[in-house]
Amino acid sequence: MTELYHWFDLIGIAVFAISGTIVAYEKKMDGFGVVVLATVTAIGGGTVRDVILDVPVFWLHDQSYFFAILAAVLITSRLINKQKSIPYYTLQIADAFGLAFFAVMGTQKALLAGMPEMTAIIMGVITACFGGLIRDVLAREIPMLLKGELYAITCIAGGIVYTLSVYFSFVTELAMVLAMLMTLFLRFSAIKWKITLHVFKYPD
Amino acid sequence: MTELYHWFDLIGIAVFAISGTIVAYEKKMDGFGVVVLATVTAIGGGTVRDVILDVPVFWLHDQSYFFAILAAVLITSRLINKQKSIPYYTLQIADAFGLAFFAVMGTQKALLAGMPEMTAIIMGVITACFGGLIRDVLAREIPMLLKGELYAITCIAGGIVYTLSVYFSFVTELAMVLAMLMTLFLRFSAIKWKITLHVFKYPD
Amino acid sequence: MTELYHWFDLIGIAVFAISGTIVAYEKKMDGFGVVVLATVTAIGGGTVRDVILDVPVFWLHDQSYFFAILAAVLITSRLINKQKSIPYYTLQIADAFGLAFFAVMGTQKALLAGMPEMTAIIMGVITACFGGLIRDVLAREIPMLLKGELYAITCIAGGIVYTLSVYFSFVTELAMVLAMLMTLFLRFSAIKWKITLHVFKYPD
Repeated sequence: MTELYHWFDLIGIAVFAISGTIVAYEKKMDGFGVVVLATVTAIGGGTVRDVILDVPVFWLHDQSYFFAILAAVLITSRLINKQKSIPYYTLQIADAFGLAFFAVMGTQKALLAGMPEMTAIIMGVITACFGGLIRDVLAREIPMLLKGELYAITCIAGGIVYTLSVYFSFVTELAMVLAMLMTLFLRFSAIKWKITLHVFKYPD
Repeated sequence: MTELYHWFDLIGIAVFAISGTIVAYEKKMDGFGVVVLATVTAIGGGTVRDVILDVPVFWLHDQSYFFAILAAVLITSRLINKQKSIPYYTLQIADAFGLAFFAVMGTQKALLAGMPEMTAIIMGVITACFGGLIRDVLAREIPMLLKGELYAITCIAGGIVYTLSVYFSFVTELAMVLAMLMTLFLRFSAIKWKITLHVFKYPD
Repeated sequence: MTELYHWFDLIGIAVFAISGTIVAYEKKMDGFGVVVLATVTAIGGGTVRDVILDVPVFWLHDQSYFFAILAAVLITSRLINKQKSIPYYTLQIADAFGLAFFAVMGTQKALLAGMPEMTAIIMGVITACFGGLIRDVLAREIPMLLKGELYAITCIAGGIVYTLSVYFSFVTELAMVLAMLMTLFLRFSAIKWKITLHVFKYPD
């Protein structure tokens, strides 16, 4: 069972590494810097989570994450070199899958560490969003996280679904799948129908 | 008494959340991203402090901070929507009050954790300045902290006043008030009379 | 012997503080912000390493680092004010020496903390590269780390040389010198002959 979670983790890591590689290509970066950007994107959120929770950082004693990242960078760059172009939505899709996986894994890890529910949900947001945040800051882009679309809030929704499912004693696997689907559904809806939230009334 | 400190903390958190909301408006951000920016600004400095000190991060087991942030964002955005404009000095004032509160609370927490005086003063600077630093980096502004005005140095002055007051066995509350007034006085002076420091001779 | 390492550490700190001061001058920063940028550049990488390793952060109980930074800022700014200009390669040279010192010290510290070899080498990269990364982000420059030249990879090479030397039971001092020379040699080669790596085929 723990092995299943590890695979979930590796998939989340890989899709974020893909998103980092795509951003690197779009910003005309090159060389080993691409691997660095992909790595920071992939492990940044979980690292911040573990440091704040004061638990051992997840990749310290497990090198498989770095092989997943290397494989993701190699395959993605090979594909990009063949296609010569990447549609913008591939970045958004990779990012959305990363969000869904990490929002759930982050909430779960914090609950297992004995955190209160609200803190656990915030840890889900940090795990899911901070890798992409660092990616966008390093690439000198406006962070997706800070744009008006549904973004952090999709992770909060996923975290709430997971926390509720655990509260109602659902099987863990079911709770995870439900929460991931919730995050993915909201995020894809936001991308497809351009759903936005408004805090400010800006003059048009 | 500890409750008094908690209220001080909450006020510092709220004024930094206000500053984050103002910056978000100025950079034409919107949606939940505003809450994220306000949150990161408000809890960023204290989080970095606690992680470096290796003490439990202050918001892990206390959700009141997030309600303070949410209230600050709601009230500030409501006011901005009514006024349709915000004078630049409101940002500077909110930021200055945040500096004063956090420089003192940070120095105090580090001293209580048994750190040497100089480290404690640096922790005050980190607590006070890093939230605003992250805010400015995310908003892609030149960080206030790195401009030529008196900024970090006002926190150092506040930290020194606090440390000295403790050394001379002043009542803690008096030490806190003196140190905050020192920070506020210097920062407001720097803003009002445009006091600057020079390290380099730039050609005019 | 431990004292020797401390001097190595101080030299690495000082050269990174020099690089921070040069970047501050180039970006027309001024005042105490220069000291802040130099400090963050100098201690940023080691701080991130210690926080991730969950060992006490190296400067908490040792103030000598801050005196080294202040001295480096004062001397560098004095020199800049005299010369009125600084050739770009001085920044690259200071940065390269910082890389060499910190890649080795970081790998060493992680090995002593019982980390696996691969993690230790990555810790060397973090120690060596993250100070400069933060410096470049704060100065709103494209991070050197993400450009196409040999950069992170020179630290990886240095870390591998150090790890192998330890594995073959070389005297520690010899291992350190060999690893530093390796990093310096590769980095200077990359600067001098403009050696670059390519992941993507960009159209010319």
